Amino acid sequence: MISRALAASLLLASLPGSVAAQPSLTETYRETAGRILDATMADTEGFEKLTHLTTSIGHRLSGSTSLERGIEWAYERMQEEKLDNVRKLPVQVPHWVRGRESARVLSPVEKEIAILGLGGSIATPGGPLTASVVAVRSFEELAALGRDAIQGKIVLYAVPWLGYGETVRYRASGASRAANLGAVAALVRSATGRSLYTPHTGSLRYDEGSASIPAAAVTVEDAEWMARLIASGEEVKVELSMESRMLPDVESFNLVAEIQGREKPDEVVVMGGHFDSWDVGQGAHDDGAACIAAWQALNVLRKLGLTPRRTLRVVLWTNEENGLRGARAYRDFLGDAVSTHVAAIEMDGGAERPVGFGLGLRSGLVDAPDALYDEALVTLGQIGALLSGIDASEITRGGGGADIGPLMAEGVPGLDLRTVGEHYFDWHHTEADTLDKVDPDNFRRSMTLLAVMGFVLADMPGTIPKVAPK
Amino acid sequence: MISRALAASLLLASLPGSVAAQPSLTETYRETAGRILDATMADTEGFEKLTHLTTSIGHRLSGSTSLERGIEWAYERMQEEKLDNVRKLPVQVPHWVRGRESARVLSPVEKEIAILGLGGSIATPGGPLTASVVAVRSFEELAALGRDAIQGKIVLYAVPWLGYGETVRYRASGASRAANLGAVAALVRSATGRSLYTPHTGSLRYDEGSASIPAAAVTVEDAEWMARLIASGEEVKVELSMESRMLPDVESFNLVAEIQGREKPDEVVVMGGHFDSWDVGQGAHDDGAACIAAWQALNVLRKLGLTPRRTLRVVLWTNEENGLRGARAYRDFLGDAVSTHVAAIEMDGGAERPVGFGLGLRSGLVDAPDALYDEALVTLGQIGALLSGIDASEITRGGGGADIGPLMAEGVPGLDLRTVGEHYFDWHHTEADTLDKVDPDNFRRSMTLLAVMGFVLADMPGTIPKVAPK
Repeated sequence: MISRALAASLLLASLPGSVAAQPSLTETYRETAGRILDATMADTEGFEKLTHLTTSIGHRLSGSTSLERGIEWAYERMQEEKLDNVRKLPVQVPHWVRGRESARVLSPVEKEIAILGLGGSIATPGGPLTASVVAVRSFEELAALGRDAIQGKIVLYAVPWLGYGETVRYRASGASRAANLGAVAALVRSATGRSLYTPHTGSLRYDEGSASIPAAAVTVEDAEWMARLIASGEEVKVELSMESRMLPDVESFNLVAEIQGREKPDEVVVMGGHFDSWDVGQGAHDDGAACIAAWQALNVLRKLGLTPRRTLRVVLWTNEENGLRGARAYRDFLGDAVSTHVAAIEMDGGAERPVGFGLGLRSGLVDAPDALYDEALVTLGQIGALLSGIDASEITRGGGGADIGPLMAEGVPGLDLRTVGEHYFDWHHTEADTLDKVDPDNFRRSMTLLAVMGFVLADMPGTIPKVAPK
Repeated sequence: MISRALAASLLLASLPGSVAAQPSLTETYRETAGRILDATMADTEGFEKLTHLTTSIGHRLSGSTSLERGIEWAYERMQEEKLDNVRKLPVQVPHWVRGRESARVLSPVEKEIAILGLGGSIATPGGPLTASVVAVRSFEELAALGRDAIQGKIVLYAVPWLGYGETVRYRASGASRAANLGAVAALVRSATGRSLYTPHTGSLRYDEGSASIPAAAVTVEDAEWMARLIASGEEVKVELSMESRMLPDVESFNLVAEIQGREKPDEVVVMGGHFDSWDVGQGAHDDGAACIAAWQALNVLRKLGLTPRRTLRVVLWTNEENGLRGARAYRDFLGDAVSTHVAAIEMDGGAERPVGFGLGLRSGLVDAPDALYDEALVTLGQIGALLSGIDASEITRGGGGADIGPLMAEGVPGLDLRTVGEHYFDWHHTEADTLDKVDPDNFRRSMTLLAVMGFVLADMPGTIPKVAPK
């Protein structure tokens, strides 16, 4: 593990041009970063690729032909681009299919309601299921109602938006928690702060030892409507029909391309996103834009003739959405070579205007001590300063991502690209996650961040400090 | 026609407390308006009524049982409230029903796309219709393509959002313009600036002499997607199925309630909105909130024991959305008595935060001369000043509304309630026009504006100037 005390250079980084024994990374890479920024911000090929991916390939759920068509297209294109060591690493992925699904309020009025079955849900057993609805605002309310109130009912989680982390618990665990009290199905208010009658899907997780019951997302509008009807004393009956099912695993691939390092080819900076998506929309913000941004960043560096000291690798992970099999397979593929990964960068929060990076340092699940963070943040701050021209210099403590999680658990420093985060969860896991929501300039800014951060981390003399794996 | 030169009071209005021969309306009504504002801003009954309307009655298209249930509910409730002269004025309204509808891209990929048939559209003749799609961004592009390119095709109007007035032309006239060149159906990008995969319906108008072809709204997402596919050289085939049809007219009602004037009961200030809605969502912003706000404004005035000099009347018009039969029937019901209407106030732009009123003065379609506007704006400015406590004092030149249009054409001064207008067209004519989008405080602010403006216009010694009808 290479580690350097850089605290003093905090000052240097903020005073470019000051006389110092050792130039800051900001000074060292100012000219190169300027060339990269000019090229990425002028790039049109990346957005063309994203247009092709979203328009002609579309959404890409694990097990779908569109995911494999997409991977094949990118694989061939990467080879044409003469990127180094273009590889498809096989991964067995789950194959859940939605099938037909519908829901209808039968009383006190009749109304078809929009649903999206939750990923992994079973079908309604033996055809459509009809039951009365019990609405709750929290798990606490569910528990307080108890088995007598829940048995044989459909539980509606009409949970207000409390941010993704808090709200997604109901999507992930709501079915099993309801089943434990005898519910026959669960409907979950979509995890979003803004709705235009838009259901949001996403994974559920059946607890071992709980009965599996079908579960679907409903819109904010219908969740609130049904909850109001129930609050006014009405009995709400819903007919739910879902034909979703889990098929045998199929083969998919993590897609890898790189610029091989000129001095230390065995040391690797990895960056990327996940190439799979849910089976709605176009997987534009989640996470197509990230995949193309990382890939095109590499391509722009190659076209500029910039070969870093270490290997800069792009991985487009498969099966992030409903299994994380790609992330685990990549870690397993590395084996002991995970120790040669000096940093991992993930972009999986959409392609709104980027503001910088978050940093996570840990070993296993244990966060690094403050001193290590301080040292790393100084280094990254110097690199971040290279992005001041596009107002994206923020480096904050805390960060990571689903696909780099297994690497970070092994001590690899993890960075995630941060954005303004204004609308991501409006689109997330919906039919609305489409190209028209991606601003080409913001997309190019993300590409710029990945190109500059990836290149400097791969090229700088030292590396950011690692927690020694236990 | 009563008319007074009020130019001098411009100054007085801006100098409350100044010594003047004649007190401004601001001074005269300051205490009364304060009482009204306190009562309307503390009112909870209005939002409860809106909750009932949107939750238990739901959307209210002309011809639907829910519209008539809604009218009956409001009629009975108005009588219980002891409002004066509560009446249902019969109106024959069109009865268009949507029926089942669906659309599917068949090639180059298969995808179910969300549609909402446009109000008044015919069905696809003889079952589903399949044709290639031609995408245009404007009527000019359509004309330039010409009959050879359009014959036998589905025309997709992938028209960017240019504001409602400009964009809605394609929804209203797109079918006939396409039919004139031989198109078999029209798909229209929804008239909105913001989409979360949400189709927006609304009326179309078949031109006389043009063939009638089926027409539906598609989402922004799918319109842009299909246009991109076509631009990339793909042939896009769509199967469209619509079972919409026009049934014989049925009876509906304009609902009227008032506080009869204490001195001049035959002179009337009318205010209201339209009680009908499209057959999606809950008609919350369009225009349920307005109806309840006007009605409850009247009710609050009655509870405060405030009886204006003239009659203050609320009309909840029927069939604004697809016929305007209610508006015309009300004008016809008045006959010569339209001359006794001293002002008409319409709220039909949603219940976002209100900022004031717009004023329209005309005769026939001819706008009033500047001097008349100046005079009226001074008067209204003095009333608007009474709403400064809720930051809603703006009085602007230009205004009107569909339901008060026939009255304005007869010279009745017309006011429309203005809001910040940030999100109205996100929800307009969609499944997302639901109660959860209505902020109770903003709703109460609108009620306050209607109560204060309606009361003062009905009570003040003079009236705002009219253009003499030709």
